[in-house]
Amino acid sequence: MEVMIMKRAIGVLDSGVGGLTVVKELMRQLPKEEIIYIGDTERCPYGPRPHDEIEAYTWELIEFLLSKNVKMIVIACNTATAVVLKEARKRLNIPVIGVIDPGARAAVKGTRNKHIGVIGTKMTIESNSYETALRHVAGEIDVYSLACPPFVPLVEAGELDGERVRAIVAETIRPLQSSEMDTLILGCTHYPLLAPVIQDVVGPDVHLISSGDETALEVAAILDFKELENDLDTVPAHQFYATGDVVIFDRLATEWLGQPVRAEKVEVSGVDA
Amino acid sequence: MEVMIMKRAIGVLDSGVGGLTVVKELMRQLPKEEIIYIGDTERCPYGPRPHDEIEAYTWELIEFLLSKNVKMIVIACNTATAVVLKEARKRLNIPVIGVIDPGARAAVKGTRNKHIGVIGTKMTIESNSYETALRHVAGEIDVYSLACPPFVPLVEAGELDGERVRAIVAETIRPLQSSEMDTLILGCTHYPLLAPVIQDVVGPDVHLISSGDETALEVAAILDFKELENDLDTVPAHQFYATGDVVIFDRLATEWLGQPVRAEKVEVSGVDA
Repeated sequence: MEVMIMKRAIGVLDSGVGGLTVVKELMRQLPKEEIIYIGDTERCPYGPRPHDEIEAYTWELIEFLLSKNVKMIVIACNTATAVVLKEARKRLNIPVIGVIDPGARAAVKGTRNKHIGVIGTKMTIESNSYETALRHVAGEIDVYSLACPPFVPLVEAGELDGERVRAIVAETIRPLQSSEMDTLILGCTHYPLLAPVIQDVVGPDVHLISSGDETALEVAAILDFKELENDLDTVPAHQFYATGDVVIFDRLATEWLGQPVRAEKVEVSGVDA
Repeated sequence: MEVMIMKRAIGVLDSGVGGLTVVKELMRQLPKEEIIYIGDTERCPYGPRPHDEIEAYTWELIEFLLSKNVKMIVIACNTATAVVLKEARKRLNIPVIGVIDPGARAAVKGTRNKHIGVIGTKMTIESNSYETALRHVAGEIDVYSLACPPFVPLVEAGELDGERVRAIVAETIRPLQSSEMDTLILGCTHYPLLAPVIQDVVGPDVHLISSGDETALEVAAILDFKELENDLDTVPAHQFYATGDVVIFDRLATEWLGQPVRAEKVEVSGVDA
């Protein structure tokens, strides 16, 4: 029985491909763990959708992962975390980890002057999730939030550097440059792919926090705490699923993860117009 | 009932004053939490003692904290963590956090070239605790371990900088300088007080990991995960206890924590010769 439990995988869900930045860190920080990933590429992005729809879609992904007998679920999407995390923790009897709190806690740990910047999608910034999480933990913190709509399209187009990208990033982030932030949370799982350019624009004195890195660290801590760590010496056989075109998914995932990925297509209920 | 639980403090124990570096980070990262600290200054150091004695002493401190109805226990001492953590997690029905695993996990997260250095007391280094923890999580890692006996006496004497300290640190750490480490774990709760000198000696490209910082981050994650966070807006009233001379303890604690500390003396069983 114990052995069966130890062999179970970590389930990771995302509205699309952004959660693969979390997977990459999980693979690096927890190389003995198996991962089952599902990206809802068919219905991506979740950001502009109504609350009930995000809730229903996310629960569909959770049910899919539960059918695979995962030992833990990582909601590797800021939007889905904001909408579903609390309820999922209540209803499931396995640990559920979101991406917002780990990033917020790491920022509180990292800041020296208590001035923290947060960038994310329009939906994430408008939800005030990071600000709420930061204040919940640390109380007196100056938070500077900024939506960066041009960033996700850049990443999805594979445009990660060059003069044009630098100009767009610099222009978008300009409102934060007058702040005293010493720490900047990349509050969207797509953004770490732009981290070198963002770091260059904000300068070396601003500490960037990537949700993926911090979430993977918390996954490691919770696995240990719950004694759910995988201790096998076999190479993990990760599984990838996507609800949309798997050819595009495979190309992006193979490139980002630096190893061949062949996803399986999963049918989900149609997109409401 | 819920409210009572939320008001309970975090218990922190150490063989002496070194665990105050963990307390300092807990106070910074979790400013809404109350802390009850006990330092076994009378029987410090634990390092050279036999296993059974360390076990018995640590359990005495745990029992003391349990009598104060704490909601979580942090073993802020590497030696006590190595000896008691596993058993304490089994026997207690509140979360117990040690200082070794958080440091090891943070090092795995931080390293890029998988070459990690560890410095600590003779006992900690000889116990191989960090090496075991690092390999348990990450498998293929090059670990360079080094005992640094002169460091604790320097810290306890309040000698934290200056030419003499720099010379001692440089001479002690020299065996690590030929390694390719990009990350160095400060595997003793005293060492963060020497961090500026150590950083200067190893150079800016080596990332220092402080157990205190990382342990506080994990405490924050586990409190959230177990829904044990304190959400009161009152200023926490920390309590400090020491088994030895409280005058010396108060002077050190007041200086390190940057706020007035008045510890209460606690009687423990005598020191076996």
